[in-house]
Amino acid sequence: MQPKHPRESCSIMTDLVLPSETNPLNNLFGGELLARMDRAASIAARRHSRRIVVTASVNHVAFNRTIPLGSVVTIEAKVSRAFKTSMEVFMDVWIEDRESGVRAKANEAIYTFVAVDETGRPTQIAEIVPETDLEKARFEAALRRKQLSLVLAGKMKPNEATELKALFQ
Amino acid sequence: MQPKHPRESCSIMTDLVLPSETNPLNNLFGGELLARMDRAASIAARRHSRRIVVTASVNHVAFNRTIPLGSVVTIEAKVSRAFKTSMEVFMDVWIEDRESGVRAKANEAIYTFVAVDETGRPTQIAEIVPETDLEKARFEAALRRKQLSLVLAGKMKPNEATELKALFQ
Amino acid sequence: MQPKHPRESCSIMTDLVLPSETNPLNNLFGGELLARMDRAASIAARRHSRRIVVTASVNHVAFNRTIPLGSVVTIEAKVSRAFKTSMEVFMDVWIEDRESGVRAKANEAIYTFVAVDETGRPTQIAEIVPETDLEKARFEAALRRKQLSLVLAGKMKPNEATELKALFQ
Amino acid sequence: MQPKHPRESCSIMTDLVLPSETNPLNNLFGGELLARMDRAASIAARRHSRRIVVTASVNHVAFNRTIPLGSVVTIEAKVSRAFKTSMEVFMDVWIEDRESGVRAKANEAIYTFVAVDETGRPTQIAEIVPETDLEKARFEAALRRKQLSLVLAGKMKPNEATELKALFQ
Amino acid sequence: MQPKHPRESCSIMTDLVLPSETNPLNNLFGGELLARMDRAASIAARRHSRRIVVTASVNHVAFNRTIPLGSVVTIEAKVSRAFKTSMEVFMDVWIEDRESGVRAKANEAIYTFVAVDETGRPTQIAEIVPETDLEKARFEAALRRKQLSLVLAGKMKPNEATELKALFQ
Amino acid sequence: MQPKHPRESCSIMTDLVLPSETNPLNNLFGGELLARMDRAASIAARRHSRRIVVTASVNHVAFNRTIPLGSVVTIEAKVSRAFKTSMEVFMDVWIEDRESGVRAKANEAIYTFVAVDETGRPTQIAEIVPETDLEKARFEAALRRKQLSLVLAGKMKPNEATELKALFQ
Repeated sequence: MQPKHPRESCSIMTDLVLPSETNPLNNLFGGELLARMDRAASIAARRHSRRIVVTASVNHVAFNRTIPLGSVVTIEAKVSRAFKTSMEVFMDVWIEDRESGVRAKANEAIYTFVAVDETGRPTQIAEIVPETDLEKARFEAALRRKQLSLVLAGKMKPNEATELKALFQ
Repeated sequence: MQPKHPRESCSIMTDLVLPSETNPLNNLFGGELLARMDRAASIAARRHSRRIVVTASVNHVAFNRTIPLGSVVTIEAKVSRAFKTSMEVFMDVWIEDRESGVRAKANEAIYTFVAVDETGRPTQIAEIVPETDLEKARFEAALRRKQLSLVLAGKMKPNEATELKALFQ
Repeated sequence: MQPKHPRESCSIMTDLVLPSETNPLNNLFGGELLARMDRAASIAARRHSRRIVVTASVNHVAFNRTIPLGSVVTIEAKVSRAFKTSMEVFMDVWIEDRESGVRAKANEAIYTFVAVDETGRPTQIAEIVPETDLEKARFEAALRRKQLSLVLAGKMKPNEATELKALFQ
Repeated sequence: MQPKHPRESCSIMTDLVLPSETNPLNNLFGGELLARMDRAASIAARRHSRRIVVTASVNHVAFNRTIPLGSVVTIEAKVSRAFKTSMEVFMDVWIEDRESGVRAKANEAIYTFVAVDETGRPTQIAEIVPETDLEKARFEAALRRKQLSLVLAGKMKPNEATELKALFQ
Repeated sequence: MQPKHPRESCSIMTDLVLPSETNPLNNLFGGELLARMDRAASIAARRHSRRIVVTASVNHVAFNRTIPLGSVVTIEAKVSRAFKTSMEVFMDVWIEDRESGVRAKANEAIYTFVAVDETGRPTQIAEIVPETDLEKARFEAALRRKQLSLVLAGKMKPNEATELKALFQ
Repeated sequence: MQPKHPRESCSIMTDLVLPSETNPLNNLFGGELLARMDRAASIAARRHSRRIVVTASVNHVAFNRTIPLGSVVTIEAKVSRAFKTSMEVFMDVWIEDRESGVRAKANEAIYTFVAVDETGRPTQIAEIVPETDLEKARFEAALRRKQLSLVLAGKMKPNEATELKALFQ
């Protein structure tokens, strides 16, 4: 399989915040944003793998900035690293001011997807070759996140997570 | 007000076709696509005008190609022409084959929006300066469509619709 | 096939405007009304043809009057003209004042549907015989709209659209 | 206040059964039909009272006939009897066969609504004068149902429910 | 089949009242609560019968207390009595004050479900043995409600409804 | 403020998987489960703090087991640790087999919420005192997760994350 670049899976989902999607403070519900990000990320994973993809895990998502009713929200999703059958998808979420048009970063999120065949069995996918500095940094960090995920799931001993361990020394 | 280019209002909404959005033939419901296009077009109109915008009319929309369940649908919306307080938004809708990744045009659509202030009163907006050949062709045709719309609404006599009339001679 | 009258396909959809269906000015979203009209029109088309029907196109729809949150909205849809395998459906949309009970026309809309068999292939339908003056006027205009639609799609030369051409002379 | 006839509050809601509204047997979910009937009945209650109305109770609803995916469902709601501040709304639910066009009764339902002012306080409404035989029969039965409701709520002694008691003697 | 206790089917559905589920007075829509109760009750019926279940009827439901936007609503559903192939499910609905944490009863509701096999045919279910005093009282009353339901449907003569008749003597 | 126990915030959300919530493999969409968990967790956080709560972050969520259409899904959410103004909520998600009634763990998830006042400003909350062994283990691990979250956000140096660091030595 031919390796691919992150930009080949880039998926942009621009949408409004409707009244039905807000919490008592009139901001976008965390749960609604999580669901939108899942759809955007799954499209990126599918564009990279050209397979049916299923959400395997949600890595750290921080809601740094509230997103008020009526906002235009843009989710940009790109595959940041491909493993044998799974992919990490990195998302940047932006909101923009209606009057000035200025975009502000609302949050980042990382989801992992597995590519499967029609029967639901994991199937091999193409590698990723990062191009920009940001893509390279995210590619590197993806391995540490994968180790962290395995450690947290009890499938890897902390001692064996060499990339991760280096962080704390 | 500084004139703007169509690309400055370009809005991309990529999303999936979920089971709840299909008709008995397992294709995307016309009504659901109309609603998504309204949201995408309203974002483009808002990016151009930096105002609250409301849908004024839907011009001809042809559903040339059915969009099956599970498709990835991309709507690209750009303001094609600005009048005093209203804007025509032109949309191209694409679907892509999961296995080959090839994109196919599903349909085109044209909506018109009016920019309003907080009280709902129409308010003036910036002009559009088209750049590409396609943008220029759409800009020209927008005037004919506006005349057609006025004729159909009984607000202009067919004889006065000079641009439109020329088409039939 | 026995010809039918427009009243035989008449479909009435009365419903509320709920908070989740409004825009930032607290009026019904254009996209939501487009989706409801699609459902109402498809029922009229199905009642006429007794077939599965799919949306073929949306002809001119003008949003003349905003529809506030909490309104009762009534959509009346009737087949206005049947062609070989397609039908034009004409809709009148009404809102009513809660206190006085007075009904006001909010807008009109025209959609076109194609009747298909279980495999999605277009299939022949019954003719329409208009009865009232309004039905007759809409029946006549439907032919001009069909020509316009073919001209806009590049499937008919403006010169051959005799009904339409007459309008501008 | 001028008395009114049931036909003045008649509200018709025709709509499709979409895939998202079905149970594992591919029939319309009971809960979805209950919600649609609540909306249709509230419109009838509002048309009679010209007030804000809130659901007070659901009387017996029997789901006699399953409603398959893709059906056209018609709910006809009329106020059957008005009390001081509350109204009983009687609904007939029909489905129709796509090919033959034949309508079949799917079920009946009875809801009670209270008319309230802007602060939520019950407010007086017009009386109902039934016209047809069916309307008269439903008007009569409404009193027994009200007594039954009061008995079940412990607000009336069975002995005092004279209309109801007569039924069992 | 081994008899079961009501607590074995106990199903708890705690959820929020979101903006999209409210009426013009900013309280939970009757129809939305009816739909949620249908889902909660169907889970209880399924837990008792271990079968596919379909809603057969809704018995008296009184909306005694409005449920404001932002409330936490808890529905507790338990099978109160099992007949040959049908079950009565009794629900208690609670809301809680955010600041004090105090729970208040919002309303009660009773639904009836039928257990069916994969082809939709009614199928036999286990009996219920009530344990607490409340469960016993509801178990007894269920028979009267069943008779009432049969009388109202014209399937039993009032004279033969011995349990019900006793109530009025 | 009086410390509380995890069981005081325990929130149970039992619900069905409806057709509109599934992916192309007919399993519950990751995004839909993320949204449900957000609602369930926010109720637990609110029960602990008796304040308005907003989602601050989603910690690691692994989708270990697919959840098929028609499943009964139970989410159990409890506050596992309270910090000054934020709370970690730990969730266990269960599905049950319809025929055998056996419950199986589908996945675990951890979300963090902040308690805020009516203006959206963080506000102090009660402490948590874990009771069971499981609660104690989750309470301990919550501190490591908080440090990890701060390290990933660049708000704490890996060297200072003493609890976390100990894990890798």
